[in-house]
Formats: sequence, C-alpha cells, structure tokens
Amino acid sequence: MKILGLDSSGLVAGAAVVEDGVLLAEYSTNYKKTHSQTLLPMLAQLRDMIDLDLNTLDAVAIASGPGSFTGLRIGSATAKGLGLALGKPLVEVPTLEGLAWNLWGSSMLVCPLMDARRGQVYSGVYEFLPCGEGFRLTDVIPQAPVGVEELTDKLNGIGREVIFLGDGVPVYLALIRERLTVPFHTAPAGANRQRAACVAALGEIYFAEGKTVTAACHKPEYLRKSQAEREAEAAASQAE
Amino acid sequence: MKILGLDSSGLVAGAAVVEDGVLLAEYSTNYKKTHSQTLLPMLAQLRDMIDLDLNTLDAVAIASGPGSFTGLRIGSATAKGLGLALGKPLVEVPTLEGLAWNLWGSSMLVCPLMDARRGQVYSGVYEFLPCGEGFRLTDVIPQAPVGVEELTDKLNGIGREVIFLGDGVPVYLALIRERLTVPFHTAPAGANRQRAACVAALGEIYFAEGKTVTAACHKPEYLRKSQAEREAEAAASQAE
Repeated sequence: MKILGLDSSGLVAGAAVVEDGVLLAEYSTNYKKTHSQTLLPMLAQLRDMIDLDLNTLDAVAIASGPGSFTGLRIGSATAKGLGLALGKPLVEVPTLEGLAWNLWGSSMLVCPLMDARRGQVYSGVYEFLPCGEGFRLTDVIPQAPVGVEELTDKLNGIGREVIFLGDGVPVYLALIRERLTVPFHTAPAGANRQRAACVAALGEIYFAEGKTVTAACHKPEYLRKSQAEREAEAAASQAE
Repeated sequence: MKILGLDSSGLVAGAAVVEDGVLLAEYSTNYKKTHSQTLLPMLAQLRDMIDLDLNTLDAVAIASGPGSFTGLRIGSATAKGLGLALGKPLVEVPTLEGLAWNLWGSSMLVCPLMDARRGQVYSGVYEFLPCGEGFRLTDVIPQAPVGVEELTDKLNGIGREVIFLGDGVPVYLALIRERLTVPFHTAPAGANRQRAACVAALGEIYFAEGKTVTAACHKPEYLRKSQAEREAEAAASQAE
C-alpha cells in the first residue's frame, strides 16, 4: 500500500510517501514562503528524486483541519486535484491527530496546541493505547478551539503527565507554566510541528480501515468561522 | 543556533536544518539510488527552498556511525567538505542515538536495530529520562555489533517493555517474537528509520554542550572492520 501525505495546515508545508509501514520520502519546510509556492514544487522534486509514478499511489492523505484557512485550502485543493486527476480516493487525517502522532508510543497524555489567534488554540488531548505490537491513537478530549485557561483546567482535572507540542507552545508556555499543576514536557525539534510523514502514516492505517472519501466530496474542517464570515455576520446583524 | 543534520548511514539519505528547537526543513529519501547521487542534490534543493545561507550555520551534525561503510563515508565526506569550506565545526551523533531519538519521550526501552549482515545487528538499548521540561537520552547498553540472540537474552534479563525500530526489525522480527519474553512494540512509518531531523536535533543539544570536532579530525565510527580489511587480514594470516 502506498500513500501520499500532504500537510499545509500551519506554517509547515510537507509532502511524504509511505509504503507498507516505511517512509519512502519526505520533504518538509517551515518557512515564510506561502504554501502555494512550495507544496507542489516540493512534491515534484520528491517525485523525481524517488522516481515515483503517482499512478501507483493508493490514496492521498491530507491534513484535513483545523488550521490556517488559507493553508488548509491550499492543501485540500492540491489533494483534490491529485485525487481527481489520478482517480484516487482521499484520506482525511485530522490535523491534531497528525500532530499527536509525533509522540507515538508515549505513555503520557499528548496535547497538540495550534495557535488559533483570538486567545484560542486548536487543541485536543490524546493517548496511545497498546494494540498488538503497535499502539493506537485515541482522543481523551476531541479536537476543538479552546482557551488555554480552560484547557489547563481540564488537564489538571485529569491529573496525568502531559507532553505539549505545536506552534501554540511558544505562544502560551508562560501561561501553561503558571496554571498547570501536573508534570509536563514540551516536544523537541523534529517532533513538535506538523509532519506529512505522520499524515501519510495515519493515512495508511485509516485507508486500511476503509476510511476514505472521494476527491469531489472532501472539504477541510475549519472548526471555526473564517474572518470574512464573521465580518459578514456582524455586518448583517448590525444592518438589522 | 542553527544546525544542519546529515544522515546517510543506512538506506535513508537525509538532510535537515534545525534552528533553536524547531525544524526549518527536512528532505529524506529511502530509495535505491546511491547517496552520492542524492545527498548533495537534496541539500541544494532544500537550501534553495528556504533561502538558506550555509554561512549562517553554527555546525554540521553528522550521523557518525555505525552503518553502511559506503554510506558513512559519503556522509562524512559531505560533512567534512562543508565544514572545511564554511569554517564550521562538526558534531558527531552516533547513528543509534539518532535512531533512538525517533521515540523521544517513551517510557519504555528503545532498541534500534540496524542490519549489519553476517548474523549481526548494530544495536544499543536506550531510555529517556525526564530532564526539566524535556527528556535526555541515555544508553542502558552502549551501541555495538551483536547477535540478536545475545541481545534478546539481555533484554529479557532487564525485564522491561521495549520498542524496536530500524531496518533490522523486518529481518529479525520472527526471531524476536520467538525469543523475547518481555512485551515489545515496533515503531511505525516515519519513526522507524534514520532521520536527519533527529541528527540535527541531537546535534543542537551536543553543540550547546560543546561536543564538537573539527572537520579535519572527524572520522566515522565503523565499529567493525570492513570486508576489504577482513579479507586482507585473512590473506595475510594464510600467507604466514
């Protein structure tokens, strides 16, 4: 089974190919260039470097949200275009599950924090449960936009050691240190941001479980309304 | 602090840049092309994609062995060339420590297995100990060439749950299942092979601790004699 994974939900743009439980290639950048300038060129370079025939893919796995609205649209548009052109299904991997997969096998709670601006993070709380010779990822608290105060209260209530990761960590670390009463850790370079390899690896598992969508049906999961929608609603309610 | 990490110790060729605890870019392939055809072109593409000025690097971290003799020589030659041309120090990251770093934060023993042919693996046994808000990696059994029977006996003696990773896992999994009496897991795609990001992340830590060598002094750690050396010694002892 061969799965292409794409993630452009945050500052990272990444493409990766996984085949039968092994990473064949990964290309990832965390840089100021917009993903529309990087994602497809990176995929093209990677394809050439490993002589990849895109027709041999079984599916395209995409970090399906939440995340940056523009980033999610670039990723979803790319995945939909590839899926339609190649006649392949898509696998939607929730962005926060992909992030949590960085800490595969941890016995602690895993809590990815994506800076969602306006005083919130996109977050969820996950744990890895032994499953055969591997682990499966399950959510203790499902992904949602949340304030860090509310999140730390919930984590204190659960009372278990926790590992944080994601671009929300540097933004909210002082607040976490102040409010959290359980021991915690922050993940290191290479394991603290989105990875297309995680999306592809989870994509391979979900594909095997039959969890696919057609390229035509896929749409990203924003979890919140966009600024344009909020402003339009505010303007409409003011007009009333 | 900005560190370039290189790993071509096995089938994977990879380059990655870490700056202040965050991955800026990573390019990794696990493909039949020889590393002399892939490593520098990948680095050049990655450099262009993130507008990297190599002169802004603080050091070049290299997976310093054990591994494939040819692979190690290509990686070390590349790192030495860059270090000499840029006037930057090198950081030697033992290949098995880089591999173990994939399982950062695990509470189990971490046991990377690199297929060393001739009935052996290059292996070590590692654990992550809490250290501030992170973890530090320590070796329970230092890296060495070893038979899998001897290794599983030692792991049974220690009696702790263990996670295996590396290209030796598919080769020896049946034997591990047969002999191991402690619970074990095998790492998934994206976390079960060499990663230049792990070399760069560990390289950043070791650089901060002052553990550098000059490019002129660096040489890879093979741990065993090469086939040519063994044959020459055999021929010499036969001649006597």
